[in-house]
Amino acid sequence: MSAEDFNHLMGLEMLSASADEVTAQLAISDKLRQPYGLVHGGVLASVAETLASVGTHLGVHEQGNVAVGMSNHTSFLRPMLQGTIHAVARPRHRGRTTWLWDVDITDDDGRSCAIARLAIAVRPQRP
Amino acid sequence: MSAEDFNHLMGLEMLSASADEVTAQLAISDKLRQPYGLVHGGVLASVAETLASVGTHLGVHEQGNVAVGMSNHTSFLRPMLQGTIHAVARPRHRGRTTWLWDVDITDDDGRSCAIARLAIAVRPQRP
Amino acid sequence: MSAEDFNHLMGLEMLSASADEVTAQLAISDKLRQPYGLVHGGVLASVAETLASVGTHLGVHEQGNVAVGMSNHTSFLRPMLQGTIHAVARPRHRGRTTWLWDVDITDDDGRSCAIARLAIAVRPQRP
Amino acid sequence: MSAEDFNHLMGLEMLSASADEVTAQLAISDKLRQPYGLVHGGVLASVAETLASVGTHLGVHEQGNVAVGMSNHTSFLRPMLQGTIHAVARPRHRGRTTWLWDVDITDDDGRSCAIARLAIAVRPQRP
Repeated sequence: MSAEDFNHLMGLEMLSASADEVTAQLAISDKLRQPYGLVHGGVLASVAETLASVGTHLGVHEQGNVAVGMSNHTSFLRPMLQGTIHAVARPRHRGRTTWLWDVDITDDDGRSCAIARLAIAVRPQRP
Repeated sequence: MSAEDFNHLMGLEMLSASADEVTAQLAISDKLRQPYGLVHGGVLASVAETLASVGTHLGVHEQGNVAVGMSNHTSFLRPMLQGTIHAVARPRHRGRTTWLWDVDITDDDGRSCAIARLAIAVRPQRP
Repeated sequence: MSAEDFNHLMGLEMLSASADEVTAQLAISDKLRQPYGLVHGGVLASVAETLASVGTHLGVHEQGNVAVGMSNHTSFLRPMLQGTIHAVARPRHRGRTTWLWDVDITDDDGRSCAIARLAIAVRPQRP
Repeated sequence: MSAEDFNHLMGLEMLSASADEVTAQLAISDKLRQPYGLVHGGVLASVAETLASVGTHLGVHEQGNVAVGMSNHTSFLRPMLQGTIHAVARPRHRGRTTWLWDVDITDDDGRSCAIARLAIAVRPQRP
């Protein structure tokens, strides 16, 4: 990841990454909050997007394919106020043209704060 | 919006806001990109989240209610590479306990790049 | 449509169908209800699925492609009790590999009762 | 369930039901198929809707509440042609006003054919 990109901007720290599971964490600070003081829901959707994309990329790039986000459905269960955002992504389906991922986002007490389901398309890399 | 929050971090510029329509724009730069060089899908989901939340807030806060994001389903139609992200949010349903919004995201040529459907809960403000 | 299939079972009556718009209606009777007496949410999701699939089929089958449902996200806005279910489907995106549709479902008074967003894959027909 | 309702129409056979897990099965026959001969996607969405609604009902009705479907997002992974549809629903979140469920639908060989995420609202029963 580039030092300039959106994952860096959010402060995303990748902990592990493979086509079977991707994990990351993120320290909560003001820059991730919305006006009410909670973590912005878009941060959680963004983390889910990164993890599912990275995991798909790792599973398909050696065959000359790229991972392209198609849809991201994030459900918010509990507001996050402080501490660390913990995220785990696991594939639910690895098709020839589409991968589906489930991402679980928890707080420091292991409580589920958001769950996301993502569809990532697998497309041939253009030369 | 605070000068420190996530909307500021992304560079979101609110253009108009009411309970009937919210519009915003965002200049594309490296900080909004993912490793392939495209705008990170999470940015588009985040913009949708902000617009639907602000619009619901404007419709319910005078009755002592707050807007709480429940679900954000963003579909990505076309990669965004440069220029400006344009977003328009309109409510599809304004219920007593839930509002539904559709957000359309277009590029400088007016092409649809993402569409999002969001459910925002309306909850009594805690004293 | 076969006289034996699921659309017939529900009593779906197709009113118009093209790659630009598909419309249908359905008379409400006990067989479409759930135990509380309302129209079963699955009926509304099913109608949306049929319309989006038929519309995509009409747009792609002459090129030797088939339409394959990928995802159906139906949101329920208002319970339906009696009368007729009216449905209109329009494409939001017609890509090479995926079409996205929005379906609006209304009652006899024109009130919005459900909205659905569907992704339909376009795949080459196997010989 | 009434002998006249939509679950009966589809031939849904409930196997077990509690607020922690609901399971059901359904024999595939022509009446559940779409024109291409596969099980209609709406059938799978409908089964998911029934299971999540029944499970929420069992968890909230003793407190004088009813379960009301809000949103059903079903993803289709693999076409179903014959045999039996097997469905298992488990709650991912049991909030005061909303329950979220994941439903897994498999074929006779245990292969995942569809996954669904549903939001079911919990509302006070009107007298």
